[in-house]
Amino acid sequence: MFHHVKELQFDARVSGPDPRFARLLLEQFGGGNGELKAAMQYFVQAFGCRRSYPDKYDMLMDIATEEFSHLEIVGATITMLLEGVNGELKNAVERSSLGKVMDGASGRDALVHEALTNPQFLVLSGGGPTVTDSVGTPWTGAFVNANGDLTVDLRSNLGAESRAKIVYEYLMQFTDDPLVRESLGFLMTREIAHFQMFTAALEDIRPNFPPGIFQGDPRYTHTYFNLSKPENARGPWNEGQGPWPSGENWAYIDDPITHVDETNGLRDEKVLGTADTVSTVKKKEEMLSKMRSAEIKSASPKVGPMSWSTYGFGGELFSGEAEQTVRSSRKKKIPQD
Amino acid sequence: MFHHVKELQFDARVSGPDPRFARLLLEQFGGGNGELKAAMQYFVQAFGCRRSYPDKYDMLMDIATEEFSHLEIVGATITMLLEGVNGELKNAVERSSLGKVMDGASGRDALVHEALTNPQFLVLSGGGPTVTDSVGTPWTGAFVNANGDLTVDLRSNLGAESRAKIVYEYLMQFTDDPLVRESLGFLMTREIAHFQMFTAALEDIRPNFPPGIFQGDPRYTHTYFNLSKPENARGPWNEGQGPWPSGENWAYIDDPITHVDETNGLRDEKVLGTADTVSTVKKKEEMLSKMRSAEIKSASPKVGPMSWSTYGFGGELFSGEAEQTVRSSRKKKIPQD
Amino acid sequence: MFHHVKELQFDARVSGPDPRFARLLLEQFGGGNGELKAAMQYFVQAFGCRRSYPDKYDMLMDIATEEFSHLEIVGATITMLLEGVNGELKNAVERSSLGKVMDGASGRDALVHEALTNPQFLVLSGGGPTVTDSVGTPWTGAFVNANGDLTVDLRSNLGAESRAKIVYEYLMQFTDDPLVRESLGFLMTREIAHFQMFTAALEDIRPNFPPGIFQGDPRYTHTYFNLSKPENARGPWNEGQGPWPSGENWAYIDDPITHVDETNGLRDEKVLGTADTVSTVKKKEEMLSKMRSAEIKSASPKVGPMSWSTYGFGGELFSGEAEQTVRSSRKKKIPQD
Amino acid sequence: MFHHVKELQFDARVSGPDPRFARLLLEQFGGGNGELKAAMQYFVQAFGCRRSYPDKYDMLMDIATEEFSHLEIVGATITMLLEGVNGELKNAVERSSLGKVMDGASGRDALVHEALTNPQFLVLSGGGPTVTDSVGTPWTGAFVNANGDLTVDLRSNLGAESRAKIVYEYLMQFTDDPLVRESLGFLMTREIAHFQMFTAALEDIRPNFPPGIFQGDPRYTHTYFNLSKPENARGPWNEGQGPWPSGENWAYIDDPITHVDETNGLRDEKVLGTADTVSTVKKKEEMLSKMRSAEIKSASPKVGPMSWSTYGFGGELFSGEAEQTVRSSRKKKIPQD
Amino acid sequence: MFHHVKELQFDARVSGPDPRFARLLLEQFGGGNGELKAAMQYFVQAFGCRRSYPDKYDMLMDIATEEFSHLEIVGATITMLLEGVNGELKNAVERSSLGKVMDGASGRDALVHEALTNPQFLVLSGGGPTVTDSVGTPWTGAFVNANGDLTVDLRSNLGAESRAKIVYEYLMQFTDDPLVRESLGFLMTREIAHFQMFTAALEDIRPNFPPGIFQGDPRYTHTYFNLSKPENARGPWNEGQGPWPSGENWAYIDDPITHVDETNGLRDEKVLGTADTVSTVKKKEEMLSKMRSAEIKSASPKVGPMSWSTYGFGGELFSGEAEQTVRSSRKKKIPQD
Amino acid sequence: MFHHVKELQFDARVSGPDPRFARLLLEQFGGGNGELKAAMQYFVQAFGCRRSYPDKYDMLMDIATEEFSHLEIVGATITMLLEGVNGELKNAVERSSLGKVMDGASGRDALVHEALTNPQFLVLSGGGPTVTDSVGTPWTGAFVNANGDLTVDLRSNLGAESRAKIVYEYLMQFTDDPLVRESLGFLMTREIAHFQMFTAALEDIRPNFPPGIFQGDPRYTHTYFNLSKPENARGPWNEGQGPWPSGENWAYIDDPITHVDETNGLRDEKVLGTADTVSTVKKKEEMLSKMRSAEIKSASPKVGPMSWSTYGFGGELFSGEAEQTVRSSRKKKIPQD
Repeated sequence: MFHHVKELQFDARVSGPDPRFARLLLEQFGGGNGELKAAMQYFVQAFGCRRSYPDKYDMLMDIATEEFSHLEIVGATITMLLEGVNGELKNAVERSSLGKVMDGASGRDALVHEALTNPQFLVLSGGGPTVTDSVGTPWTGAFVNANGDLTVDLRSNLGAESRAKIVYEYLMQFTDDPLVRESLGFLMTREIAHFQMFTAALEDIRPNFPPGIFQGDPRYTHTYFNLSKPENARGPWNEGQGPWPSGENWAYIDDPITHVDETNGLRDEKVLGTADTVSTVKKKEEMLSKMRSAEIKSASPKVGPMSWSTYGFGGELFSGEAEQTVRSSRKKKIPQD
Repeated sequence: MFHHVKELQFDARVSGPDPRFARLLLEQFGGGNGELKAAMQYFVQAFGCRRSYPDKYDMLMDIATEEFSHLEIVGATITMLLEGVNGELKNAVERSSLGKVMDGASGRDALVHEALTNPQFLVLSGGGPTVTDSVGTPWTGAFVNANGDLTVDLRSNLGAESRAKIVYEYLMQFTDDPLVRESLGFLMTREIAHFQMFTAALEDIRPNFPPGIFQGDPRYTHTYFNLSKPENARGPWNEGQGPWPSGENWAYIDDPITHVDETNGLRDEKVLGTADTVSTVKKKEEMLSKMRSAEIKSASPKVGPMSWSTYGFGGELFSGEAEQTVRSSRKKKIPQD
Repeated sequence: MFHHVKELQFDARVSGPDPRFARLLLEQFGGGNGELKAAMQYFVQAFGCRRSYPDKYDMLMDIATEEFSHLEIVGATITMLLEGVNGELKNAVERSSLGKVMDGASGRDALVHEALTNPQFLVLSGGGPTVTDSVGTPWTGAFVNANGDLTVDLRSNLGAESRAKIVYEYLMQFTDDPLVRESLGFLMTREIAHFQMFTAALEDIRPNFPPGIFQGDPRYTHTYFNLSKPENARGPWNEGQGPWPSGENWAYIDDPITHVDETNGLRDEKVLGTADTVSTVKKKEEMLSKMRSAEIKSASPKVGPMSWSTYGFGGELFSGEAEQTVRSSRKKKIPQD
Repeated sequence: MFHHVKELQFDARVSGPDPRFARLLLEQFGGGNGELKAAMQYFVQAFGCRRSYPDKYDMLMDIATEEFSHLEIVGATITMLLEGVNGELKNAVERSSLGKVMDGASGRDALVHEALTNPQFLVLSGGGPTVTDSVGTPWTGAFVNANGDLTVDLRSNLGAESRAKIVYEYLMQFTDDPLVRESLGFLMTREIAHFQMFTAALEDIRPNFPPGIFQGDPRYTHTYFNLSKPENARGPWNEGQGPWPSGENWAYIDDPITHVDETNGLRDEKVLGTADTVSTVKKKEEMLSKMRSAEIKSASPKVGPMSWSTYGFGGELFSGEAEQTVRSSRKKKIPQD
Repeated sequence: MFHHVKELQFDARVSGPDPRFARLLLEQFGGGNGELKAAMQYFVQAFGCRRSYPDKYDMLMDIATEEFSHLEIVGATITMLLEGVNGELKNAVERSSLGKVMDGASGRDALVHEALTNPQFLVLSGGGPTVTDSVGTPWTGAFVNANGDLTVDLRSNLGAESRAKIVYEYLMQFTDDPLVRESLGFLMTREIAHFQMFTAALEDIRPNFPPGIFQGDPRYTHTYFNLSKPENARGPWNEGQGPWPSGENWAYIDDPITHVDETNGLRDEKVLGTADTVSTVKKKEEMLSKMRSAEIKSASPKVGPMSWSTYGFGGELFSGEAEQTVRSSRKKKIPQD
Repeated sequence: MFHHVKELQFDARVSGPDPRFARLLLEQFGGGNGELKAAMQYFVQAFGCRRSYPDKYDMLMDIATEEFSHLEIVGATITMLLEGVNGELKNAVERSSLGKVMDGASGRDALVHEALTNPQFLVLSGGGPTVTDSVGTPWTGAFVNANGDLTVDLRSNLGAESRAKIVYEYLMQFTDDPLVRESLGFLMTREIAHFQMFTAALEDIRPNFPPGIFQGDPRYTHTYFNLSKPENARGPWNEGQGPWPSGENWAYIDDPITHVDETNGLRDEKVLGTADTVSTVKKKEEMLSKMRSAEIKSASPKVGPMSWSTYGFGGELFSGEAEQTVRSSRKKKIPQD
């Protein structure tokens, strides 16, 4: 259950209207890396781990709630940057004149002129934010990544936070308004903080690589196909040990076409670069499969009706007295690799 | 700023898993008339009236926050209806078999079979809700209607609540689970309650018809074009007074093609059905234009930096002591028509 | 079956090309509140009531057909505002120069420059309208609301007409061309007229509130949750009688979190604000369920093949002689509440 | 200006409800090759040639209007195939039971069961068509191809009609209902007829190849790059004269990588396969550029206001007396290649 | 299996940055008629004819691969036109100033200013192409037409190539840069070449009209409905023989409403314009149905596992020695009509 | 420039048709985590680092090309799983019967029945893949994340590979076909391999955290807001050092509402948890800003025309003789943090 306090999490302010920057800022309101995407992504991911990972559930809901609060900050800033547009629109009888605007009039006409870079501020939203990105493409549920596996979801979040961070960084270059920059700086910084939270949460789950249960066929995990020619860059991603455990290394296939032909479409491929075999890998998978499945099932009601909540936590909610603390104990429960 | 309480606004429960109904219920999670749409619509509308209509702002934020809480109820219910799917997916080594499932196996296979009606529960979300409607089309920002004018926005909301209500009504026919029906009944009922809140808020703004400022050209407000032949239904929407003020009535154009030809494309149309003239209408528009524009501008800072919030409301937030009450006084401020 | 007359319903004219306004006007061609949306919405709604509500069917088809005719007016206006673009594009060998255009050349270059605000006029449509809104997002079927229940559909239409009206009102502020303003004035006015038609049609169906059949659980219809703090605006939407029948009134939940906790997630809620009980409501629902279902079923063929049309209305279609008039008699057929 | 006759262009009938085929048929209602796409495509293309090609404008509007009439036939058929759904939904109190349905009940339950293949018939549209394709993806303006050049647009239409035809052909395999097959047969046949109309119209414009004005650089028009190995199919598309004028033929580049390297990225390519040179081609382009541009500009008002229609055609519209016949004379006006 | 050579198929160059033209050029990167669409369309069509039409499969894969190579050319050009944007973004501390930019600063500020026409170059992609069209709408799979029938698919391709050609033609008018024009000229020309390849391939399949198997009901193939009045253009698309075989001709229905009424919704229509009858047509259909079905089935494995590839073509791939040539022999195999 | 070898990178095979699994597999063809998304994401990212990071460019193009090759494997598998559908569709005269199918017929009818779970296989694609996900939603360019900064892009790729991996893992549970499982196993394993390549490449760039240039405001980087109550999980993501450098730790804000109020919307926040100050951070940013910007600019042509490729690499491409090796030397060039 959500509730709301009228005050913003951060004291968002603007020095004056700037419809053009309002348009750019839409990228973080309804864009693919914006606050709504972040809020919905963590919110949706949280459902799946409510019971089996209550500590991660709490973290996801804390951050989701913060992202909704950031969405509000962004929306409020856009609205303030468009200050005046709505008042002028209501002044309907004394209409504006595009023709005059073009010849460089000042004040209100200039405001309208700038707003024209996003015509929907003028003819659709009446001076408020639209649920779109900076070019007017509507937000879509396709932005949200939630796959029911925390070793995947947390990595999706690391990518998402990285993108949100860089978009704020880019945006900061396009406004001179020190007050707006203050808010952008806060929002950008929180993406860094969230990145670290997700990093820590991912580390708290062991083993976490590869994501999911299956380990990968050792014949194909360590090979690199050189498919773009003629330059062949070599580096830790295709040469030497790379990020593999000690004793393992990359196998570089210099001429993939011939190689594929000679291995009958890789079916005759040998294990390269690792001491793992199909059967050692199989064992790991069986163990992990059992463990993770048990972990989730044990958190589920054995039979009969399910409910989501229990009530009776009392009225002390915000004094902290009745709060319960769940401590992360995952590291103890799951054997490390 | 949002915060969150782990308990749901309504005690959502299910009697057991039902992946097929989970799919239907997605219509209210990420569908065009669902809870996310409602929440985002009221939230976005609220930005524009934060200063000029603080009482309506409060109402929109109260209802938006409730809709986010409903979104959580719907998501929680879908997750419970999919109970078991994720656990089975994690049991990756003992995989399921579509072939066997088809021959009518029971228990877990049957579960998986039902879930197949929405394959994304199985291969994408891992047993959680997707941000889509019941056929898998992603939620889009295009669902949100917010036009910066409360006489429009509140009417958009009456339509939206009506659609949300009927979708819950339809959904209730497709589950036997009394616990799920309880939750649906609650959610459906709240749409009725919100409908009445929006109705009252719209009545509180006067004049509110036509929406916006302009009154319409009296030559074209009262005419009905009979464009679909040969049956010609007559009723209060094209005959007699209809919803017009006393003394006004519909003008029925039985043969629009000839009529359009004879009036030179309606440019020579006479005023029909009303005593209003172009000039009486003009006066109303001027008055209203001045009034509404002034109302909005007077709520705006005259010059210089703007901020959204003021702080220092103290720690008594939830005991109610420090709360401020804003009373609707709109009826007094604006002359009635 | 549609047919078409080459002449427009309104004599749309323009004083000269204006590619920039053409772009804004796209909002009403392929935008979410535009003419295509309106036409398709009423057209799709009409299918469902062809038999059971022939009078409403006739009205929906009359208005849908008018909206297709308005779509044509908007498209024709956009095309005239882009006059010259296509001719220049065909003049392919003497190509235009963006570089020169930027330095402020006149005439044709200026035309091209202005058109650049929507590059698709230049490089995609060749000077015609695109089936998009003003920022280029394609029209989507998701805009259309049709839910198979007239008490819902007509309310959706009231919202849709309100939005279409305000968008025309906004648009009128951004052109000086008196001829274009004439057309916009006509189109805007017709939205007002349609609004009134739908209002009257909705009133003609009784009871029409709440939309659909189910009445809502009386424990939850009259409560208002104060979820956004600390300001608490009070008004007819959460205080006093509001839009409820005499004797009923709002119940205001000042502290929803505690309230939800104490009522076990609202399951122990009492009926507040109304004398209705779960059982009186149930009775209404049963009566209405029977009535509406019977109404629809009685209009359907009992058994066997169905056809949509009957032929043999003769050649007198447009002289009006053979036309049939269906009069609204719904008020008589359905007992009022 | 459109008008509407209640009777369908073709006497669409069904033998009984079939929700499953209704779902398939949506492909032609709101799908990418369906009737709405066709109607909108020709309607939008028509705007651009209203003045300069009045004969093609007439054809496009005739066919667009027929496609809208076909859209109505498809929608009516879907509605009849869903007969009963809406009546059952209104019978809200006696709700259906998915559980029972699954055990194989008959009659109404079976109907609901079948409808489940598209849940939106049940929980969204209440038994009417949705503006989507058969999997529920909403229709999008991106389906419409209109590029302001008839030599392009007519070819787009030949493709569109071919796709519409094959979809009807496929659909006919999935229904046993002879009445439905009758309607599908009619609709499919009309796509063939339209195909021929567009073929003839394209032939009526000369020259029409290549589409547009520019002729193509003769160094690159006749070469075929063999980019997919090792099989190398040879045929009239890469060997011999192909569809080129007599005396011209394909040039086959067997080893494109070496060829590109040796020609410095094709910049040193020689003219192959044709006697055309860069300068003969240039001349053709200049002539055509002048001709087409003049053709369009001469149809445009020289200066001042523009209007779309002229009125005063009198009341004889449908007796044919006042109709004007425009004959195709394009072949005479434009020199053949 | 794809591989890649770092060098472009055509030596794409630019004279200097031009963010505004970069935006226009996006139309051919991620737009509806752009290179990604073309590449994916031919690639997807190819799957279905891998076995039954190996020669057409080869052609489709050759052209698809070339289109991917063109996509790379377009992307490389956009990147070069945005040269400098990324470097400035990285220069994050010395940020740009929109305010100053507006006052007409030069150099880097001017660059940023121009880029503002597409804000996503600045705040999202950091100076690279986005997978969108010129107005920022994302590429969609809905652009791809592939219907499993070459007589349809090849016609879709003729339309697609025509549109791609005209968009390049339009684009060429909006840049002065001779190097960019060189690349556009090459790309445009290749669309012409592909058009001819598809033309030849379609001719190689006989019969190919109507597309698919069914011939159309002779009662409806030759009639033209005059649905848009009062002008009635006559030409080879509705008068005389048109594109029909000798001895056949169009039947013109001047007054379709009366005609439909009198023929009971066209059910009593007579065969007009052709000597074909329902039964002669039926025979053709049976023959063709048998032929085409056999053709496809004979190319399929009778029973058991299927594989896509055979290996062992040896290392001589690019010297041409081991290549196999498949010659088109369709004309011989299928009896002509 | 791409080229293509007809043989697949992996020898994809199927034991027999399975239209239902074909539908599920679409998730990896045109879905949000599928092969087309991966291919396009790396391809688009590569443009931006062609000059400044030639080694990373090579890696991105190698992997992009492999993903296109995987897209082909997935498409080929879907096509084989639909074997028979197209042949039956061509057998148009002997049409299938849904009615009969429902009663449990065998063989071909059963095939068609299963295909019905995705009707577009039957009525749209004619038995080939569609560019959609498993529920028929078209692929969208919005799936592609490319932000012009490798420290961001590579993290986006780690998320993308994780999701692709888990979707293959889930898919493997829904087929019994050992040949299909072989292919899925190969494809899933390659996502693991790519994950490691991107990990290594990211490590090769130093510093790489936070992504981009700006370091974040130290007042907000280390605080955790406890926004979801009453349970408060504690763990390394909000307690102790977490993933911060030694000496730094999380600051936990237990009561964010009061805290925000008391700090005036966090403007009066103190630096918590780190010894960094606003000015030490500023210095880092300046240094990094200079470094990264210089790095990119030094890779760009100083002035004048740009070209993408150089030619003349000779014909030895695939024997490896003329290949150039670029070694990663980034670690040496950029000082470590």
